[in-house]
Amino acid sequence: MADRGPRKDPPRLTARGAATRDRIVATASDLMFRQGVAATTLDQVVDACGISKSQLYHYFPDKEALIAEVIAMRKHRMVSAHKPQLDQVRSMRDLERWRDWLVTSRRERGEPYRCPIGSLANELSCRHDDARRSLAAVFDTWQGLLADGLARMRDSGELDPGTDPRELAVAVIAALQGGYLLAETMQDERPLAVALDMALDHVKAHVRIPVADLTQSDT
Amino acid sequence: MADRGPRKDPPRLTARGAATRDRIVATASDLMFRQGVAATTLDQVVDACGISKSQLYHYFPDKEALIAEVIAMRKHRMVSAHKPQLDQVRSMRDLERWRDWLVTSRRERGEPYRCPIGSLANELSCRHDDARRSLAAVFDTWQGLLADGLARMRDSGELDPGTDPRELAVAVIAALQGGYLLAETMQDERPLAVALDMALDHVKAHVRIPVADLTQSDT
Repeated sequence: MADRGPRKDPPRLTARGAATRDRIVATASDLMFRQGVAATTLDQVVDACGISKSQLYHYFPDKEALIAEVIAMRKHRMVSAHKPQLDQVRSMRDLERWRDWLVTSRRERGEPYRCPIGSLANELSCRHDDARRSLAAVFDTWQGLLADGLARMRDSGELDPGTDPRELAVAVIAALQGGYLLAETMQDERPLAVALDMALDHVKAHVRIPVADLTQSDT
Repeated sequence: MADRGPRKDPPRLTARGAATRDRIVATASDLMFRQGVAATTLDQVVDACGISKSQLYHYFPDKEALIAEVIAMRKHRMVSAHKPQLDQVRSMRDLERWRDWLVTSRRERGEPYRCPIGSLANELSCRHDDARRSLAAVFDTWQGLLADGLARMRDSGELDPGTDPRELAVAVIAALQGGYLLAETMQDERPLAVALDMALDHVKAHVRIPVADLTQSDT
């Protein structure tokens, strides 16, 4: 349960049942991350879990139900990974730390530059409207975590009072998504770094210049 | 042929054979755009074309061969759509025209905010290394078209002499890709507009400020 997002289990699910259910979702999520959603069959999930197909159907009536839980799990993991960092954002330096972590953590773990949220959104948004809505909500949560940090920077006077934290956050997450896609396709972290540097420069353009500095430039 | 990129046809393909082949690729491209690559079966392509499966296999030994041609067709279409505009880029105003076209053309045609190149890259890069390489080359071409325009702006003195057109182009295409993804998921063109505005502001930050303007600001 610790690895999952909040959800309603069927009331009579035993601890062992809940563990099996979670294992199915984690396995499906992993297969879908590595090979895509449509390319992942329920037979592959069953084989990888070492369970029977009837066991799978006991927990999930169909693939759509399983996909919904994969989205919930990935949302939970995204929040778990990003919230502790974004909750600390009070300055450009904090944002730069988050940027560095985004660029280096995949490399350090030997993982592909592939966004667990963005890759689902790309594949599902055109075909499954329920999934699309769920993923739009995940992006909204993600942008909200970042916008809260940007709002703190604005309210403390670091960013210009006219700054729109939500709009800035949308731009930064777009840069992150595009950076991931190019980095994965090029198998090179550079496009991700370049895209995030553009995004941080965009935030920096809203940094409030103290009046003292403005007058200094005339001297 | 007019609608396709350069490729080697089997030498004995008749005009009618070439037309059938092109129709198969266009149909497959359309199905894959609307529902994804893995979700598109050869049976669906055959049905939509009104041909037999043995006819399909006459032109394409397998799905991978068909995917390779879909990539080539989309590359050709991307170049056909973007090159005439990017070849004209000599100023920020030209870039803004391209940005406006990117945001409004989908809306006007009632098409989803889905990049024909980016959506393939997202789905194929993790599974098919040949396709990934081809798509990396498509992004490289796209960035090159944009970088050429940015280089003209630099060489004419509009952009700072230290500007790296290639790096700027990577950032802009990343913003475009992320903007598409968020716009499609949110079913809202706003994230695409916000991402492209960030990208153009990023270019604008490299606009050379004439010395006359610098001294004027002191008066």
